[in-house]
Parts: sequence; structure tokens; C-alpha cells
Amino acid sequence: MRFHTRKWVKPEDLNPNGTLFGGRLLAWIDEEAALYTVVQLNNSKIVTKYMSEINFNSKAVEGDIVEIGMEVKKFGKSSITLKCEVRNMMTRETIITVEDIIMVNLDENGKPKPHGKTKVEFVKDRLKDK
Amino acid sequence: MRFHTRKWVKPEDLNPNGTLFGGRLLAWIDEEAALYTVVQLNNSKIVTKYMSEINFNSKAVEGDIVEIGMEVKKFGKSSITLKCEVRNMMTRETIITVEDIIMVNLDENGKPKPHGKTKVEFVKDRLKDK
Amino acid sequence: MRFHTRKWVKPEDLNPNGTLFGGRLLAWIDEEAALYTVVQLNNSKIVTKYMSEINFNSKAVEGDIVEIGMEVKKFGKSSITLKCEVRNMMTRETIITVEDIIMVNLDENGKPKPHGKTKVEFVKDRLKDK
Amino acid sequence: MRFHTRKWVKPEDLNPNGTLFGGRLLAWIDEEAALYTVVQLNNSKIVTKYMSEINFNSKAVEGDIVEIGMEVKKFGKSSITLKCEVRNMMTRETIITVEDIIMVNLDENGKPKPHGKTKVEFVKDRLKDK
Amino acid sequence: MRFHTRKWVKPEDLNPNGTLFGGRLLAWIDEEAALYTVVQLNNSKIVTKYMSEINFNSKAVEGDIVEIGMEVKKFGKSSITLKCEVRNMMTRETIITVEDIIMVNLDENGKPKPHGKTKVEFVKDRLKDK
Amino acid sequence: MRFHTRKWVKPEDLNPNGTLFGGRLLAWIDEEAALYTVVQLNNSKIVTKYMSEINFNSKAVEGDIVEIGMEVKKFGKSSITLKCEVRNMMTRETIITVEDIIMVNLDENGKPKPHGKTKVEFVKDRLKDK
Repeated sequence: MRFHTRKWVKPEDLNPNGTLFGGRLLAWIDEEAALYTVVQLNNSKIVTKYMSEINFNSKAVEGDIVEIGMEVKKFGKSSITLKCEVRNMMTRETIITVEDIIMVNLDENGKPKPHGKTKVEFVKDRLKDK
Repeated sequence: MRFHTRKWVKPEDLNPNGTLFGGRLLAWIDEEAALYTVVQLNNSKIVTKYMSEINFNSKAVEGDIVEIGMEVKKFGKSSITLKCEVRNMMTRETIITVEDIIMVNLDENGKPKPHGKTKVEFVKDRLKDK
Repeated sequence: MRFHTRKWVKPEDLNPNGTLFGGRLLAWIDEEAALYTVVQLNNSKIVTKYMSEINFNSKAVEGDIVEIGMEVKKFGKSSITLKCEVRNMMTRETIITVEDIIMVNLDENGKPKPHGKTKVEFVKDRLKDK
Repeated sequence: MRFHTRKWVKPEDLNPNGTLFGGRLLAWIDEEAALYTVVQLNNSKIVTKYMSEINFNSKAVEGDIVEIGMEVKKFGKSSITLKCEVRNMMTRETIITVEDIIMVNLDENGKPKPHGKTKVEFVKDRLKDK
Repeated sequence: MRFHTRKWVKPEDLNPNGTLFGGRLLAWIDEEAALYTVVQLNNSKIVTKYMSEINFNSKAVEGDIVEIGMEVKKFGKSSITLKCEVRNMMTRETIITVEDIIMVNLDENGKPKPHGKTKVEFVKDRLKDK
Repeated sequence: MRFHTRKWVKPEDLNPNGTLFGGRLLAWIDEEAALYTVVQLNNSKIVTKYMSEINFNSKAVEGDIVEIGMEVKKFGKSSITLKCEVRNMMTRETIITVEDIIMVNLDENGKPKPHGKTKVEFVKDRLKDK
């Protein structure tokens, strides 16, 4: 799994108990899953369809740096299944895991559309091909 | 299930495709689960431990009014299991469901603590008892 | 009066004195008045026209759960007058009251439009009638 | 009345009808009243106690620049009464007016405390006196 | 230089070290530069092109009131160069300075467009001329 | 230069002209510089001291994915100098560059403190050494 996006836990991200608000964390994960899918499927019209169970393993506190990892588990016909882990960047302790996030590729009318992708692609290779 | 909190979907809640950003919705659910738990367990130190699989059934768009429903499925020793449904308030169409959200009661050191609750309580009854 | 929407007072909602920022509270009230009106008038194009005097009775602090109550005071021809109370959900202490909030029903050009409503309606009855 | 703070109406400030969300506007006013009071009373521990009726005269749309005016109407013993007007900076059209905003000076325990002020002061004069 | 917009440093504006988050401050400056330009050039389609070096002279903490000053350094053909200083309103201590902010006037297609302005104008004079 | 953090440009990030608000972009850069410094210096108490000139090369629009690159240019005694580039992830077009961002290492009293670092370190090597 590759970890890219990092976040610095600021006061605006905290719940009243002074730890990272779980809802904020879920929003970060959903954004990362969405943009990862946009890049892989090379289509900006995508939508979150499903998340498998979510375990909140450990907490994060103010000032922590968390990093969000994504990897592709499966390319479906019009969907892609991702796995996500969020961890504390300094200690590598797992904060949250989501085994399956299913994202769906949409056409202009918002209906599922085959994406034709079967393996992870890198932007630099695509640009080389042009 | 009782539906309480409502949200008006505003531009700040949208993803770039003009529909309700899934991450925002998850943050709303986590806040509702947390405050529902605080009220039921009568303790403000609680934490989200687990969410079962999440199905994004239908989308919401700008101007929609969504309402968030919660009910208790089970009182554990130091935990409480909630069920959540978010729906479009005007059409009653289900937007998202989460079958199990496990919230944990904590003591001052952040360790699980038995809460002693076994059934849903209403604030008005508690106040009457005083 | 019926209380629906609840909020958990988080660090992002505080003023520099560590209590709930009054401006945030007013924004919550305005959103609740707006969505309540959308539901009652069954029209998403509405606008806040007037609020009567606002008394800040007591404060709220981090971790408090506040609930927002609304009721209809009067159905005008193209307007609706609401009454609002925000209270601490656990103690029932009143935080703020607004005696009259006048919301106006608009047509497509943003001009006041008669709404034809004369009493409070419930979404479930409307759906039954279909 | 002197107009100081200006805001550029951005997408994050809009309601679903594409005009400035009234709640956002009220939050801006409350912040301006608070900081104006902190400066006048030379005390950072202050609180909003009361707002008189609020008329929403005209709307603002995306890209508009609005400016917020404040003036002191009265110095009480432990309070100060402000008048507020928000207008479109380019057209000078009034957007909202609040005739009386009562702010209260607090001591360290959050109780009203006499502030000893009787007229508007300017920071530059205070600094000169040092 | 004239100082107009003021901000009250709230918890949502802080970094994890409890001081004003630099990124928030830069966002405030960019908004002020943008709206100042819209007013001067009497055109809402403008863009930030360049900022010269930025010195973070002193910090701000929760509860501080900061004010943002702008002045025009030069009117170009399709651009305007501004100077900015942000200071603590109560102590007049400089928080940040930006010697040159270049804003560009755009036509409907987003291309630079001559603005025809050569000196600072005041809105009240423009309105008088009508 | 290594690019890590990515952002999906959402409606809440736009200016009134429908392009990415420059202030939001600057806030993203400052956060990335801060957290990169925390990781490199292994100290959470750091502060932004200086940014060299900033060129806004191209714009970003709703739905774009931008990625933020950082590299160390120099290790000072109590500071670190970073270089930053933000680009469109799909087209690799540069959006903004900042040649020098100087971050300072602080002690508990907020005074500059030597950090003893002379080269880029990776968290995984640090963890191996334990």
C-alpha cells in the first residue's frame, strides 16, 4: 500500500474530548478514495457506493500527522474496489482500516459506465504515451 | 427508528459532481452517533469504535433536506450498538444505512468503563427523577 | 414546540473564551428555520426576511449537546412566522430564544408568492395522499 | 457609522438558492460586534447578550463584496450597545440592519463587570498615552 | 496604508501549537487583496498573479484581533500592485508583511484586460458621479 | 521533488469566479510545509518564518486533483529551508511554486532551538533504529 496524503491534526479537527473527530477522519478517507479513483479511472464522474466495516484501532491527537494509504484490490467492470489504511506517520500505528471501498464509474447521466481499466496506471506513463 | 437531526444540503457540502459529498455525510452520521451516545450513556467521554458496512443507496443534491435516524440495537457492558439510516426528508428515500455503529463508554483515562445502562432513556424522565 | 436537530459543541464552534460562538448558534438557527420552512411550504425557494429580538439566556460549552426547537406561529399569505428555542439537551436550560422568524415563499424570479398553506403538515401524510 | 470589515461572498457562503446564506451573515455580524467590543472595552472577556430585531433588506450574491458597519449607541455600566449595518460595498445598498446589539463585559468568573468606559476610544490614542 | 478588515482569532484558526495557523492568515490576505482589487478595478473577474516574499514577524494567539491593511503601489496596464501588512490591532505589532501582491484584471475569457485605472478611487465618489 | 498530499478541488475551495481560491491553496501549502518539517525535525513545535516569492502559474478548477510537492533545500542550525511546487496531478501542469519556505524549530518557550539535523531522514529508518 502506498501512503500519499498527509494531514496535520489541528484544533478544527477535534471532537470535544480533544482527540481527532471520527467524522473528520471518514471525510478525509472518502476524499482520498474519490480522488484516487478519478486518477485511476481517468474520469472525474465517480461516486462512493460502499464501504465495508470500519475499525477505529487507535486515536489521534492534536498535532499528530496522519497519512492515508490506498491500494486497488480489484477492477470490476464499472467499479473499482480499494483498500484503505490510515496511520500515524511518525509511529506507524494504524488508526483506522477499511478493507473494501467500492467506487463506481459514471457516465454523463450518472449511470454506471464500464471503465475498461484492468490494472493500476501511473500518470507519468500516460503522459509519456501522448 | 426516530429521526431527529436535519441538514440542508448547501454548496459547501457538495463534491465536484454537484452531489452531496459522501465524506460530509459520514461526518454527520458520526456526530449524530456520538451525541446520541452521550445522551443515552449520560457520559460525555465516548468514542466511535466500529462501523459495519455502509451502503450508499441514493444520492442527495443541493437544496435537499436530509434527516438522520438512530436507534439502539444493543446495550453492551461498556458499549452501545446503534443503527443508523439517513434519508431524504421529503421523499423518504433512503440515502445511506449503517447497520451497526459501536460506541464505547470511557473513563477519565480513556479506558472502557461499564455504563450500567440496559434500556433507552429519555431526558425528560431523568429530569423528573431529580 | 418540537425539538429535532441536535449539535455537539466542538472546538470549531467555540469563541476565544471557550464558549459556544454566538455567530455559530445564529447560523444553526437560520439553517433550521430555512429547512423547516422548505418542508412546511413544500418549496425550496424561500428566504429569511426578519428575526425578532434575540435573547442569549445562557451559554453552552465544549461537549454540550444543544437541540433546536421550531414551531409555526402563523401562516401568512406568502410568509410563515416561526418561533425558535435552543436549549441544552441534557439540562433543558434555555440557551437562546427568538420569538418571531419570518420566512418568505418565493417564485422562480425571487418574488414573494402565495403558498396556500394554512396549517402544519407532516411529510408522512403528504406521502400517504399520493 | 464606520465600515471596516469586508467579505467577498464565496461559494462556501451560499445557501442552496445561490444567495448569501443568512446564517453566515449573522455569524459575521456577531464576530464583528464581539471584536469591536473587545477593542472598545479593552477586555477580551465579553459576551453577546441581546440582539434587537433583524431586517433582511436585500440579498447578496456570489462575488458581492459586503462591508460591516458598527457604531456605539450607548455605554452602560457593564455593557455596551452597538448598532450594526451590513451593506453592499459597491452599491451601498443595505443588506441587513440590527438596531441594538448588547454586549456585556465579564470578569474572570464570567460575571458582568463594570468597564468604566464612557466614550469611543481609538487605539492610537491609547498607545500614545503609554 | 488603511486598515479595514479585522478578524478575531478563534479556535478554528489555530495550528496545533495554539498560535494562529499561517495558512489561515495567508488565506485572509488573499481574500482581502482580491476584494480590494475588485473594488478598485470595478471588475469582479480578477486573479492573484504573484506575491513577493512574506515575512512572518510575530505570531498571533487565540483571542487576538488582527487587522489587514492594503495600499496600492502601482497601477499597471492590466494589473495592480498592492502592499499588505497585517498587524495586531491592540498593540500595532506587525504580524506579517507582503511588499508586492500583483493582481490581474481579466476579461470574460480569463485573459488579461486593460483596466484603464490610474489612481485610487473611492466608491462614494463613483456613486456621486452617477 | 516528491509529491505526496493530494486535494480534490471542491465547491468549498472556489473563489467567486469558479476557480480554486488562491488563499485556500496557500493554506494547503503552509500545512504541508509545517507537517513536512515536523517529520524531518522530529519536533512538533515549529513555525513558518518566511516564504519567498510566489508565482501563480496556472489556475485549477472544480474537480481538479492537485498534488503538493516538497523538498529540502537546506538544513540550517535551527531552521530548515523547503522548496514547494503544486501541480495538477493529471496534466503535471505547475499551478504554483515557492522557491524558499523557511521553517524554524522551537523550544518549549517558543524560542529557536538547534535541531541537529543535516540530511533528509525517512521515518521507516528511524523506526528500524529503535
